[in-house]
Amino acid sequence: METEKILKDFKSGKIGIDDVLQKLKSMPFEDAGFAKIDTHRTIRKGFPEVIFSEGKTTAQVLKIMEMMSRHGHNILATRATKDMYDAVKDVHPDAEYNESARTIVIKKEMPESKKGEILIITAGTSDIPVAEEEVVTAEIMGNKVEKIYDAGVAGIHRLLNNKEQIFRANVIIVVAGMEGALASVVGGLACVPVIAVPTSVGYGASFKGVAPLLTMLNCCSPGVVVVNIDNGFGAGYFASLINK
Amino acid sequence: METEKILKDFKSGKIGIDDVLQKLKSMPFEDAGFAKIDTHRTIRKGFPEVIFSEGKTTAQVLKIMEMMSRHGHNILATRATKDMYDAVKDVHPDAEYNESARTIVIKKEMPESKKGEILIITAGTSDIPVAEEEVVTAEIMGNKVEKIYDAGVAGIHRLLNNKEQIFRANVIIVVAGMEGALASVVGGLACVPVIAVPTSVGYGASFKGVAPLLTMLNCCSPGVVVVNIDNGFGAGYFASLINK
Amino acid sequence: METEKILKDFKSGKIGIDDVLQKLKSMPFEDAGFAKIDTHRTIRKGFPEVIFSEGKTTAQVLKIMEMMSRHGHNILATRATKDMYDAVKDVHPDAEYNESARTIVIKKEMPESKKGEILIITAGTSDIPVAEEEVVTAEIMGNKVEKIYDAGVAGIHRLLNNKEQIFRANVIIVVAGMEGALASVVGGLACVPVIAVPTSVGYGASFKGVAPLLTMLNCCSPGVVVVNIDNGFGAGYFASLINK
Amino acid sequence: METEKILKDFKSGKIGIDDVLQKLKSMPFEDAGFAKIDTHRTIRKGFPEVIFSEGKTTAQVLKIMEMMSRHGHNILATRATKDMYDAVKDVHPDAEYNESARTIVIKKEMPESKKGEILIITAGTSDIPVAEEEVVTAEIMGNKVEKIYDAGVAGIHRLLNNKEQIFRANVIIVVAGMEGALASVVGGLACVPVIAVPTSVGYGASFKGVAPLLTMLNCCSPGVVVVNIDNGFGAGYFASLINK
Amino acid sequence: METEKILKDFKSGKIGIDDVLQKLKSMPFEDAGFAKIDTHRTIRKGFPEVIFSEGKTTAQVLKIMEMMSRHGHNILATRATKDMYDAVKDVHPDAEYNESARTIVIKKEMPESKKGEILIITAGTSDIPVAEEEVVTAEIMGNKVEKIYDAGVAGIHRLLNNKEQIFRANVIIVVAGMEGALASVVGGLACVPVIAVPTSVGYGASFKGVAPLLTMLNCCSPGVVVVNIDNGFGAGYFASLINK
Amino acid sequence: METEKILKDFKSGKIGIDDVLQKLKSMPFEDAGFAKIDTHRTIRKGFPEVIFSEGKTTAQVLKIMEMMSRHGHNILATRATKDMYDAVKDVHPDAEYNESARTIVIKKEMPESKKGEILIITAGTSDIPVAEEEVVTAEIMGNKVEKIYDAGVAGIHRLLNNKEQIFRANVIIVVAGMEGALASVVGGLACVPVIAVPTSVGYGASFKGVAPLLTMLNCCSPGVVVVNIDNGFGAGYFASLINK
Amino acid sequence: METEKILKDFKSGKIGIDDVLQKLKSMPFEDAGFAKIDTHRTIRKGFPEVIFSEGKTTAQVLKIMEMMSRHGHNILATRATKDMYDAVKDVHPDAEYNESARTIVIKKEMPESKKGEILIITAGTSDIPVAEEEVVTAEIMGNKVEKIYDAGVAGIHRLLNNKEQIFRANVIIVVAGMEGALASVVGGLACVPVIAVPTSVGYGASFKGVAPLLTMLNCCSPGVVVVNIDNGFGAGYFASLINK
Amino acid sequence: METEKILKDFKSGKIGIDDVLQKLKSMPFEDAGFAKIDTHRTIRKGFPEVIFSEGKTTAQVLKIMEMMSRHGHNILATRATKDMYDAVKDVHPDAEYNESARTIVIKKEMPESKKGEILIITAGTSDIPVAEEEVVTAEIMGNKVEKIYDAGVAGIHRLLNNKEQIFRANVIIVVAGMEGALASVVGGLACVPVIAVPTSVGYGASFKGVAPLLTMLNCCSPGVVVVNIDNGFGAGYFASLINK
Repeated sequence: METEKILKDFKSGKIGIDDVLQKLKSMPFEDAGFAKIDTHRTIRKGFPEVIFSEGKTTAQVLKIMEMMSRHGHNILATRATKDMYDAVKDVHPDAEYNESARTIVIKKEMPESKKGEILIITAGTSDIPVAEEEVVTAEIMGNKVEKIYDAGVAGIHRLLNNKEQIFRANVIIVVAGMEGALASVVGGLACVPVIAVPTSVGYGASFKGVAPLLTMLNCCSPGVVVVNIDNGFGAGYFASLINK
Repeated sequence: METEKILKDFKSGKIGIDDVLQKLKSMPFEDAGFAKIDTHRTIRKGFPEVIFSEGKTTAQVLKIMEMMSRHGHNILATRATKDMYDAVKDVHPDAEYNESARTIVIKKEMPESKKGEILIITAGTSDIPVAEEEVVTAEIMGNKVEKIYDAGVAGIHRLLNNKEQIFRANVIIVVAGMEGALASVVGGLACVPVIAVPTSVGYGASFKGVAPLLTMLNCCSPGVVVVNIDNGFGAGYFASLINK
Repeated sequence: METEKILKDFKSGKIGIDDVLQKLKSMPFEDAGFAKIDTHRTIRKGFPEVIFSEGKTTAQVLKIMEMMSRHGHNILATRATKDMYDAVKDVHPDAEYNESARTIVIKKEMPESKKGEILIITAGTSDIPVAEEEVVTAEIMGNKVEKIYDAGVAGIHRLLNNKEQIFRANVIIVVAGMEGALASVVGGLACVPVIAVPTSVGYGASFKGVAPLLTMLNCCSPGVVVVNIDNGFGAGYFASLINK
Repeated sequence: METEKILKDFKSGKIGIDDVLQKLKSMPFEDAGFAKIDTHRTIRKGFPEVIFSEGKTTAQVLKIMEMMSRHGHNILATRATKDMYDAVKDVHPDAEYNESARTIVIKKEMPESKKGEILIITAGTSDIPVAEEEVVTAEIMGNKVEKIYDAGVAGIHRLLNNKEQIFRANVIIVVAGMEGALASVVGGLACVPVIAVPTSVGYGASFKGVAPLLTMLNCCSPGVVVVNIDNGFGAGYFASLINK
Repeated sequence: METEKILKDFKSGKIGIDDVLQKLKSMPFEDAGFAKIDTHRTIRKGFPEVIFSEGKTTAQVLKIMEMMSRHGHNILATRATKDMYDAVKDVHPDAEYNESARTIVIKKEMPESKKGEILIITAGTSDIPVAEEEVVTAEIMGNKVEKIYDAGVAGIHRLLNNKEQIFRANVIIVVAGMEGALASVVGGLACVPVIAVPTSVGYGASFKGVAPLLTMLNCCSPGVVVVNIDNGFGAGYFASLINK
Repeated sequence: METEKILKDFKSGKIGIDDVLQKLKSMPFEDAGFAKIDTHRTIRKGFPEVIFSEGKTTAQVLKIMEMMSRHGHNILATRATKDMYDAVKDVHPDAEYNESARTIVIKKEMPESKKGEILIITAGTSDIPVAEEEVVTAEIMGNKVEKIYDAGVAGIHRLLNNKEQIFRANVIIVVAGMEGALASVVGGLACVPVIAVPTSVGYGASFKGVAPLLTMLNCCSPGVVVVNIDNGFGAGYFASLINK
Repeated sequence: METEKILKDFKSGKIGIDDVLQKLKSMPFEDAGFAKIDTHRTIRKGFPEVIFSEGKTTAQVLKIMEMMSRHGHNILATRATKDMYDAVKDVHPDAEYNESARTIVIKKEMPESKKGEILIITAGTSDIPVAEEEVVTAEIMGNKVEKIYDAGVAGIHRLLNNKEQIFRANVIIVVAGMEGALASVVGGLACVPVIAVPTSVGYGASFKGVAPLLTMLNCCSPGVVVVNIDNGFGAGYFASLINK
Repeated sequence: METEKILKDFKSGKIGIDDVLQKLKSMPFEDAGFAKIDTHRTIRKGFPEVIFSEGKTTAQVLKIMEMMSRHGHNILATRATKDMYDAVKDVHPDAEYNESARTIVIKKEMPESKKGEILIITAGTSDIPVAEEEVVTAEIMGNKVEKIYDAGVAGIHRLLNNKEQIFRANVIIVVAGMEGALASVVGGLACVPVIAVPTSVGYGASFKGVAPLLTMLNCCSPGVVVVNIDNGFGAGYFASLINK
């Protein structure tokens, strides 16, 4: 955790910017030819090393994990297929697969536990896989996660009956496909930052997530920001960044 | 109201389809060259004669009104400019202009008053012009209209505090721009048909009404249907059709 | 049917809004973790309990049905696969599957029969599956349904030869893919509310239903409203709401 | 008309392809620097010389006309402003301006009159300017033109009452904005080629002509082809090409 | 061919419009429940009976063919799968399948042969299936068809070397995917009507045919019209309508 | 600040959810007919009262301010025209107008000053108006704001030379039009939350902000979230929510 | 030209990368608060200093020019209004304005003259303003420019008659709106790099340049690349980069 | 290489344009019916003969290769499946398949080796297949190729650490999916032409490459041009054209 210390020292004024740059410059990244393992980034962010598996071959995922695993950090692979997991498990028997979230987690160290609570609310049952990616991401970063699943606005009392959790959370993630109206309603109720995640759940004029994406971008409640369609990892990561 | 009687007689079985067609066939429409005045339609629908003024010259609007006014029915011109109204007023001193709704109304007969109530809810203040077009349309068709303006979901208690009106209405029209989430929430609360009207109010990714249009089409509450962006007239008309 | 009575009492003035809210508040919904069974909603709407099966696992559908079936209401699962049905049939031998409509129906009570007739018209043969979803939905809600299939405007006499049915119906649903022009023509002929359902039938510039969707939204006949692409359930439901 | 003769001679077999190419090659076009006057093209097509005025300065239009007028052919300027006309009139006192069609015509020779009739049908009054561009174009090419204006499908009897004209025409042009359904209906009725012209008339989800454009491209009647939005000139020109 | 005679008599003035309508009214169409066989249309258009097979089951195609085959006209099924053909062949051993064009043809009568030549030009090899649908369509309607395949503008001498065929044709169909520029070039060269058919051939920003569709709609050569993406049948049909 | 205290007491466990709801329920909002002044919301959010002026008349803005000003909170009007300001100044001589940001501020109380620093970076000079809306918003909420304007990636040393500020900030807002790549680069460098604001600055294929919006949504750096195009207020507000 | 020398020395191997970075690091940019004048960039690129004026105030343009003019390089302002020029002329009497190109040029040094020729071809007269921006840009960078204006494919002999120029050029820029087919044809003829510039010239389905943009991106001739719609400056700049 | 010589002689002034045209005219292309083998083009461009295999059958690819292989030039088939390769290998045992690039290469002659270096940079691992198509294309055209893979801006030091290669290259190709920001950063750093290749790598709002395409088109660094999504061949070809 050398870098982290460097940055903290800089922030608190202990060392100057030149020192920081000097030190950071000497930080290596490893080059596998087809991929550059950014140990620099990982350390700087205070986070597990992450692999976005989509578009990579199983062999590439395995190779990247091999390089990563030397550092002793936690590893998180998102959008991983069951086949990838089966290959990983042979090498890392302690790897865990979350089938719904499509994540592989290799836990090497215990994350520092954060105080505040991240609340994840989905509009429907079909949004759960995206929500689960958030859960896995947030938990490996040391957050306590609460869930309210299937609380879309078509039956708004399902949401209003859970006001207590909404008022108690430190950060809220709203996951919704179809028309995505849930983000606006939660944004209006909550006093804390809300991260809206549109999902590709829906049909016809939902255009694979475009409808909820637009809904969320145009959200009339000001405390709401948006990430890419189905980007559970990004939402979980950002929520962790602001959860203190 | 001859046609209306014909159709009712047909429905009740008094006369056969051949008689209906025979009678309808002899109904004239008047041809002004640039426009065909559809007296047939007007009568059949039990409705004032309507002019969509956009894209027409003032002279064309005046000429159409002249032809219409011979029939003794109420006349409604939508999307009419103030200039059109000034020209109309010279000929029809009793014409009324609603500046917000941009409608000209010439009242020649009292519409038969309907029992049920049409409730019009807008998400914001800027949606009022579209709502007013609905009000004018619904009222000239004999409906009693209630309004809740500026009750968007960003402050959902503004809506929930008016639940009483929602439960009392026979038909509800929801008018919303920005992200249009209000329709979903009202659709979830109400037990009656909801007509959703997206408006071009908003900026950036609202794309002049596309965002609320998609929201409303993907509405997860099943009792909700949609009309074109800013189509206040269409919503008021349809609401009147189903208000009994 | 307690809620229904409450709402009726409220509407007729027997009880005040405070009483209503008090009573509604105590209504439970059941929570399966991945789904919240909204018995509240079901009762309030006077409707069978509905499962949108797409994006749910067979196990989830089964579990939801199990919870629903305790209430003694009719159950309708839409967008259900044959595999889901096979699993359901084991538990509910009386479940019925409509292969074209992709619906599972479990009938527990006889719906109150409505007087008016719902007429469903399709433009082509390929639009029938969407129409059938409407038929199943409307019938389980107690409506009498008439059908005119394959009556697109390319051969308009196929439609005009059925004018009698059009004049007799209480509500009309028009189902059309390709260019969707049928809705405009029926809207111009009919004196009753028309619900337009764009379908994803077509190729090239129909863009999976966008072409008929735009056609229907821009429909120049005012008595026409629109639902999402392929949303047969929504159209059948709405038609039932306004059929009296 | 030398070129025309050459091509006819080639078609009838009088002369070979080499002769044609040889002869055509020597045909000049005039170069004004900012524009190349394609006398070659004009002759080949048997048509007046045409200027698309949009995006050109008045000075450029004047200069092009000056060069064209030396050839003794008819000249047609489309999308011309009133200001352009005023400038043209000073030089060509016999120039005629059609304010609705926004065309300037300078007639230098009488076109050979064709036998068949071109029928132009518009859906609404606002579509007339595009239709008038077709009328001007078709007439200067020697065609007899018939018009049915404001016969949209919302009142289909307005169209059906004119079946006689539809059966009599040699070519039909359908001009429609909004949802553009008129093309499909006419295409279903007519036995002759139908050219569909979408217009930018409409609002909201008509997206400045995209809605009728898609409608017409997806037209289920096979005898229908489409030109660009508001392209009255192109439709009139093509109609003349196939009118014999 | 009674109807055809009626219409010809009407056109030549032998009989009046009332007679025509009277006679046409009595023409039946056959109703299979899921489809209405439009014998009326077929006769009126002077064309084989056509089935658009996409979205229909093999059973439906078979049933429709059975009904059609009673009339003794030629039958053309487009977008037919090999499976459909195998089923059809059992009943109609003389049915022919064009694998590239995906058409089934059952020939019952010899079409009246037309004089003029239809020239079909494709930009690439991958556009051939669409072109072949045009060939089959045009030939069964009695046209003589010429082909120039793979003559895209990237090697414009491939086109210019075939000028002779271009000058000889009566109607030209241009079939192009990718950027679709071929239509503009042919439109500039040809003196006859050009029908442009965008295809879904291409990748990336061709957006499944949208790129060539827009190219063709914006074609600066006036004698060019457009049909839907991959609509070979429509182009062949229209070409036949104007080939005299 | 009663509400705030209530919510804090709830969070710390001093009072239960029932008490909270009871207390909140009695909080009024004021109804001006065309607008509902949400005092409830304002208090709950610990924020100035805000008016989105676009689409409202000057009279409406004045009336809303009049109602708001009774509460003694700071008032912020965004997207206000100079004309609105002139009218406001007559009644509130202490109102301040930021012409670039188009904001009116009426300061009634000093916001509690926050420790962390919000850094606002723009890609170009033309993005400054959006940035200024953020500055005004953030400052009135008690934040210290730093600015780096015109540091787009075309000259990346302009950004890298300011690394010190990037490492020092608590929250970063990146404002960029054109292609919006700045957000990705800053997101890769920074260890703190980054809020990306696409602007409508650009031309051609920037499509009024769609290009940078998509860039930012697809940002490969995980600590980046997005708000609507040109939504400076939303970004400033959210930044303030997470600045501690 | 210090930097240039540094880079050349590096390329030829005279100095190492560390020296380069060291030297470049010390290069200042000037900060005007609202803009950072990138002298670094200018030198590195061997190019005049450039101001994109759109979205900037006249005062900002003036201030930037003032800072730039101290360096003694040529200055080029694109998208400058006549008003900006009038203000600039007061300070820089030698500034030149090209009204069609909307450029201001202040010439301080003679560019080194390049040998090869850049050929600029436009499809129509309306594309000339974009072409002129290219001319101004290329000429101030020392290139010899040839022009062929109004040589669109509708009259392809206008292009073929200029083959000589096409074969002689070192780089070709094709400027076209409408359907943009010219780029494909030139790309097929030329043996040198072709830069395609779509313009917003056109109407209807050209969608302000989207149609020619897609055409050019899908260009089947491999030696063609594309820049943004109406980006004359970018094309002129790139052409100069590769003209040797 | 006769043609090449002709063109060079023309450029150097040895022969006139008439001679060129005369000579070129006599150059044959071979016609396979479904494809025209453009030997003319191949020679003119000084390039291997190329087959775009997508949309062609294996039989067609084989036949085209057979015709091409008679000329003795190198052959490059892009977008070739493994099945195609297996069929090709039987006939051409020396054919090489690059599985990642999906290319088949048959080398018949050694390309003339160019001096300058083409640098190919990808943003991620998943972009490698497109980059490999560029590598194969550039190498068979005689270029020396350098690669930096997985150097996206999320970890910008991975790019900055390779500045040396960037400064050394003659032409740079940037390959990026997701948001495509890499092109802007490289464009800002480099002094040489940059060709940007958007890829379809990504999910959600990347819309299969539209997001990086727009990013690259709006790139604020002027030395950047764009090719179609996933068009590795086009980028490699163009890079070779300008590499000297």
